[in-house]
Amino acid sequence: MYRAPVDEIAFTLKHVCGLGDLQQNTRYAELGDDLVDAIVAEAGRFAAEEIAPLNAVADKHGTPLQDGKVTTPPGWREAYHAWIDGGWNGLSADPESGGQGLPQMLSAAALEMWNSGSMSFAIGPTLTIGAVEAMEKHASDELKAKYLARLVSGEWMGTMNLTEPQAGSDLNALRARAERNDDGTYRIFGQKIFITYGDHDLTDNIIHMVLARLPDAPAGTRGISLFLVPKFLVGDDGALGARNDVRVAGVEHKMGIHGSPTCTMIYGDDGGATGWLIGEENRGLACMFTMMNNARLAVGIQGLGVAERAYQHALNYAVERKQGRAPGDKGEGMSPIARHPDIKRMLLTMKSKTQVARAICYACAHAIDMTSIADDDEGRTFWNERAGLLTPIAKALSTDFGVEVASLGVQIHGGMGYIEETGAAQHLRDARIAPIYEGTNGIQSIDLVMRKLPQSGGTQINGFIAELKAIADEVAASNRPEFGATADRLNASIRDLEEATEFMLSAQAEGRIADALSGATPYLRVAGLSLGGALLAKGALRSVSEPAARLAERTLLARSFCETVLGETAGLKSDIVLSAEAIQAFDAEALAS
Amino acid sequence: MYRAPVDEIAFTLKHVCGLGDLQQNTRYAELGDDLVDAIVAEAGRFAAEEIAPLNAVADKHGTPLQDGKVTTPPGWREAYHAWIDGGWNGLSADPESGGQGLPQMLSAAALEMWNSGSMSFAIGPTLTIGAVEAMEKHASDELKAKYLARLVSGEWMGTMNLTEPQAGSDLNALRARAERNDDGTYRIFGQKIFITYGDHDLTDNIIHMVLARLPDAPAGTRGISLFLVPKFLVGDDGALGARNDVRVAGVEHKMGIHGSPTCTMIYGDDGGATGWLIGEENRGLACMFTMMNNARLAVGIQGLGVAERAYQHALNYAVERKQGRAPGDKGEGMSPIARHPDIKRMLLTMKSKTQVARAICYACAHAIDMTSIADDDEGRTFWNERAGLLTPIAKALSTDFGVEVASLGVQIHGGMGYIEETGAAQHLRDARIAPIYEGTNGIQSIDLVMRKLPQSGGTQINGFIAELKAIADEVAASNRPEFGATADRLNASIRDLEEATEFMLSAQAEGRIADALSGATPYLRVAGLSLGGALLAKGALRSVSEPAARLAERTLLARSFCETVLGETAGLKSDIVLSAEAIQAFDAEALAS
Repeated sequence: MYRAPVDEIAFTLKHVCGLGDLQQNTRYAELGDDLVDAIVAEAGRFAAEEIAPLNAVADKHGTPLQDGKVTTPPGWREAYHAWIDGGWNGLSADPESGGQGLPQMLSAAALEMWNSGSMSFAIGPTLTIGAVEAMEKHASDELKAKYLARLVSGEWMGTMNLTEPQAGSDLNALRARAERNDDGTYRIFGQKIFITYGDHDLTDNIIHMVLARLPDAPAGTRGISLFLVPKFLVGDDGALGARNDVRVAGVEHKMGIHGSPTCTMIYGDDGGATGWLIGEENRGLACMFTMMNNARLAVGIQGLGVAERAYQHALNYAVERKQGRAPGDKGEGMSPIARHPDIKRMLLTMKSKTQVARAICYACAHAIDMTSIADDDEGRTFWNERAGLLTPIAKALSTDFGVEVASLGVQIHGGMGYIEETGAAQHLRDARIAPIYEGTNGIQSIDLVMRKLPQSGGTQINGFIAELKAIADEVAASNRPEFGATADRLNASIRDLEEATEFMLSAQAEGRIADALSGATPYLRVAGLSLGGALLAKGALRSVSEPAARLAERTLLARSFCETVLGETAGLKSDIVLSAEAIQAFDAEALAS
Repeated sequence: MYRAPVDEIAFTLKHVCGLGDLQQNTRYAELGDDLVDAIVAEAGRFAAEEIAPLNAVADKHGTPLQDGKVTTPPGWREAYHAWIDGGWNGLSADPESGGQGLPQMLSAAALEMWNSGSMSFAIGPTLTIGAVEAMEKHASDELKAKYLARLVSGEWMGTMNLTEPQAGSDLNALRARAERNDDGTYRIFGQKIFITYGDHDLTDNIIHMVLARLPDAPAGTRGISLFLVPKFLVGDDGALGARNDVRVAGVEHKMGIHGSPTCTMIYGDDGGATGWLIGEENRGLACMFTMMNNARLAVGIQGLGVAERAYQHALNYAVERKQGRAPGDKGEGMSPIARHPDIKRMLLTMKSKTQVARAICYACAHAIDMTSIADDDEGRTFWNERAGLLTPIAKALSTDFGVEVASLGVQIHGGMGYIEETGAAQHLRDARIAPIYEGTNGIQSIDLVMRKLPQSGGTQINGFIAELKAIADEVAASNRPEFGATADRLNASIRDLEEATEFMLSAQAEGRIADALSGATPYLRVAGLSLGGALLAKGALRSVSEPAARLAERTLLARSFCETVLGETAGLKSDIVLSAEAIQAFDAEALAS
């Protein structure tokens, strides 16, 4: 059972992450608070009533491949069509292509709830939206005219084809080939693996976005082009024509997200799949980055969505399950385990990490929206850098939190948590992919440290830190004893972030690249935890005009996170500044068998 | 593929965890270093060659229940019989019952390797050994004569039947009934769940140890008795007779350890299962604790065993898999990912956490052995308390590390880690049960804080802390720059442990029980991390006469753990002293739907 936390989501959008900045812009003139609330409520209703019940079914049923066709779990086709009929697929797409033109913040909120409903279900449309974004920015008008509206509506779905067996994190090693035809189309050849929704029965056509190399392309990532390869060729009248030369060769047997078909795709077995170039030749990576950046945020939101579902699952169990007698409990018999301090600790950690992931993901969406409405170069640069800074944090921290929260959910269930019928284990199995795909969390950390910290000579990161400090100061100035040690812990973590940032910027300035790389993972966590603590505190500060119970709840949550989780930053900071030498001295190859 | 780390295991036994103390005792007069090495090597060979290849098969095959019978995976029966033919089952059992009478330390070492081979396989005999220990201490001579030798040899296996649907962590709620027969036997009725190896085809008989209540028993845990209930009744001549009134009603579908049948057992559907009392009426819990304490260490060793397997798996993959160019790598093409700093960080963390779990589990076994050879009350009390202190740490920290290490193993594999065929995910799924069963890790933490810290008025814990300090001092005095910040970090963590211990002892002295319970989980981790850092450092200190490469490897491992992981204690300590108020203020029940 899942209950969409629509109040908390709307509050976080409006009062923590700056939806108001967008509402004041002429582009979103019609986006009043009532409309926001209505969209969130209706997306939540759909997630809870239509999607959530499909999650366990999908885990059990999987997506079998038979006679070259992938079947989705029972009920999925109906749910998908109800979902696109509601207009949800094109929520943030350009109205010119039939989209609703709403901000990414609202997409993020809706996507959270769809992921809480079922991560396997929500991931399909995420890929389609990535394809839409790449086409909106880079495709020719002709391609747009033929494909875009049907991708925006969800009548057709899209895929991203990057990975090959030898090319995962390193796209330099990509080998798929494209050859020019005389009519301006291309013949595509090669094998792609781990292709999410590579084949399925939800839609009549599937539009693959495929990275491949032209025969005369330069080596490395500067020789990669992006092609649109439809499963069925599309006539000028829009009618489906012949089957293209692309087929699904296998569906992976995975630890989780069994409802999401992860396919091996073969292009060009029979003379070449017909493809159309998107953007320019050899500039495919830039097009792909358009898809990937938003996909990274979308994966962070998967971590968030599963965390919320796992938290609710564990909370409901803890209230019902009785064992032992909690301290101070005077009643007869056993207490609900939700009254035992150790269980409360776990529930609080689950709840606060979930809310941190929410606030960071929405803040990242806000920065993306601000970039697109900025009316001058300065604003555009600032918000683009801010989005760049927040994207790896949103992806990595939220997905790590997804796993941590789901694992605590299993733990709270005790032995029942390990039994598949209970459903707690599925959340953990599902969540475990998110720190891996769309750039492993290690890659995110390296991106943060090597590309994002040096933005504008460090001005962006230092401004970001100053914003966190301002929140800590506001907590201190509020003089509310209910905050406990929040301000102190927040300030301590921000100091850790400052020191770690100095270390990273100096290491790069001095060419000690391996030192920076060695500490990248703990650096991202320091930054994410500090930001998370600050955003929870901001939520509490902005709740003073809310009902007293919500103010108390948000204050307790911020306090608990700062007193319980945020202390991690001290150890992470010393790790960053101390451990590079030992890491580099470690010769793993000498130890392998 | 698994290669038994026999050198590291033998070194840890001898030079880190005090096997020499036992070798000097007359009881183990024949246990020379050569014999130790030979036992470790042969156990390792069996684990690597006979058990390890069964692990993936078992995950896929499971243990289906058909016509009331459970079938183990292909090859298991043969492997089990080869294993008992090797005399491994009775390694530490009393020679009077046919055991080898070896110390628990050697059992622990062998058990580690069997768990690396296959956790599902190793857990069966663990339960049998628990039954043997309970019988050795508490059973009548008549019962011993009939059952003990055949349990020690492994001809029959044993089970532990505690859990019922409403009685998990809280045995007060136990309902299974026992009624007296005129001939001194009992009729047993009730349902037990989560019974490991409750039914299987490895042996011709299964000896169940069952907790149940007599009709006139007091309420709560003081009214629980322990009964021996064989699957097949045994004649005075030892021949198998009629089927007893116990049956398996179901096998759970679990997240992992698919090779271990987790059964629902029904006793007394047809008039009552015939049982024999072990120990005294209403004193069953004391008998069960004999089994449970050693079982807790055994579960800690499961975490260790899976961690070692997952580490080797990831290490071998990281050396073979090539992606990107590592900093400073001058060669052509892509580097093995084992050269990338972020991967090295993960491998080092996996390796050091595994070695910490090993040293703590062996140290716990050492304390158990020292208790049994102590020749005066003072020594017995000291070592019994030490074993009591180390058991919850060994169980909880090693099983948490098992999950953490296995999860890093998945991460190092990238997308391949999420595909079941790779095997990395199985380690994580298998490891995830260990923090739950045999007393959740929350229960272990509460046991540590509420029962073990107050031992001898705090003398035991304070002496333990003093021993850790002595190691940190020795590191500092060694003046070896290769230790980096080891001594500093170790001292800092020991100070955190001291402060946290003071907080816990004061809280209890002042009746602030909820405060102590609120911080129990982070307290256990502070104690375990400090101990782990100290034991790794001790290993490095004791390696000065080893080959230079081993000295360098152990020093780097200690240093890396202390610089990378040990910094956690700062945050955990502040968590312990700060967070109790927020935790207690959290009203989870008000939030449930």
